[in-house]
Amino acid sequence: MSILLDDLSSREAGVPFMSPTPEEAPGPPVDARVVRTRNDILRTAVDVLVEQGLDAVTHPHLAQAAGYSRATLYNHWPSRNALLRDAFLLRGSGEHSTPAGDLRTDLIAELTKFRSEMEQHRIHRALAVLVTLTATTPDLADVRDKLVADGEHVLRELLAPVLAGPELEAAVLALSGTVLNAALFHGQLPSDAVIAATVDFVLCTVDRKRP
Amino acid sequence: MSILLDDLSSREAGVPFMSPTPEEAPGPPVDARVVRTRNDILRTAVDVLVEQGLDAVTHPHLAQAAGYSRATLYNHWPSRNALLRDAFLLRGSGEHSTPAGDLRTDLIAELTKFRSEMEQHRIHRALAVLVTLTATTPDLADVRDKLVADGEHVLRELLAPVLAGPELEAAVLALSGTVLNAALFHGQLPSDAVIAATVDFVLCTVDRKRP
Repeated sequence: MSILLDDLSSREAGVPFMSPTPEEAPGPPVDARVVRTRNDILRTAVDVLVEQGLDAVTHPHLAQAAGYSRATLYNHWPSRNALLRDAFLLRGSGEHSTPAGDLRTDLIAELTKFRSEMEQHRIHRALAVLVTLTATTPDLADVRDKLVADGEHVLRELLAPVLAGPELEAAVLALSGTVLNAALFHGQLPSDAVIAATVDFVLCTVDRKRP
Repeated sequence: MSILLDDLSSREAGVPFMSPTPEEAPGPPVDARVVRTRNDILRTAVDVLVEQGLDAVTHPHLAQAAGYSRATLYNHWPSRNALLRDAFLLRGSGEHSTPAGDLRTDLIAELTKFRSEMEQHRIHRALAVLVTLTATTPDLADVRDKLVADGEHVLRELLAPVLAGPELEAAVLALSGTVLNAALFHGQLPSDAVIAATVDFVLCTVDRKRP
């Protein structure tokens, strides 16, 4: 127990008054403890957001949940939006599959990975909050765009050799949209059969184009 | 100007202490002014939600925005969630197209109508808030399910004669998911060409099944 307390107090003591953000990368090296503190707090913020909702994401509540002082949180992030911005960027859009060379198998694997990220980390809840916030906080739109671009990049790379223009856009929107729609608006993740059927809708058109 | 004030004060005076909800329909007839008051406030709540975000949806702010007393609002809805529930149910999922008999034309018309509801009424913002709230307020799930079922029913009726099981589910999720995904996660509504391409993915599979 004393070890825990010691560890906690040393963490507190080691945090200088500075607010390094990923965009400020060039500059003096950031103390490893500062990075650890920041990431501890940001991960806690995402957990609290997903489990308890946006109203629970306050500096005092996060300070208690992450085991740091309120002053530390305010020093790093003067506003909740600043904290949420870094939390979303650290969390990212989740893991991806590794394409193996068969388009149908690879598309199904990528959507299945997307589904398991939702199942394990409930990233759809974080995404819903991000989208809700972006409606009234336009300066979060770049965070949303970054996460969405990262979230889609495997699908896009798989489909770019066989579709283009509006068809490529529609395929990316329909495939990821099926998983998002099920998770967010239907409260349940899509079954294997639904994922396969969605992939086959797109591949039917791809096949038809083949000479 | 005095007419407006008179009208406003008579509305205030005419509101008895009662909270009729759509589910309580059987019973004594509800005074038309009460219905008007309720609907005025609920419509204002959706407008405020869509324009200013969830934080702006408070009894005092809505009372001011709708031109009623705070007491009236608290009498009708003791909690914000109770008010939001009725507001979402009154708002509904928007207007639908009227199928004319050609499957491709009808599917495109329905998705185009969905897109225009988003464009004109920003219903995707209300939906995003509803989804976010449902994550931490499970008793709003039935409201979400009701709106989603109503939102999808034309698509489902159009596709039920030609698809079934996971293919039908996948088609409904992919078609509405394309529009939702574009509006919510990409910050822009899908083009005509993207809507047509998504419909054609599904119809390719439908055509292939034909003898």
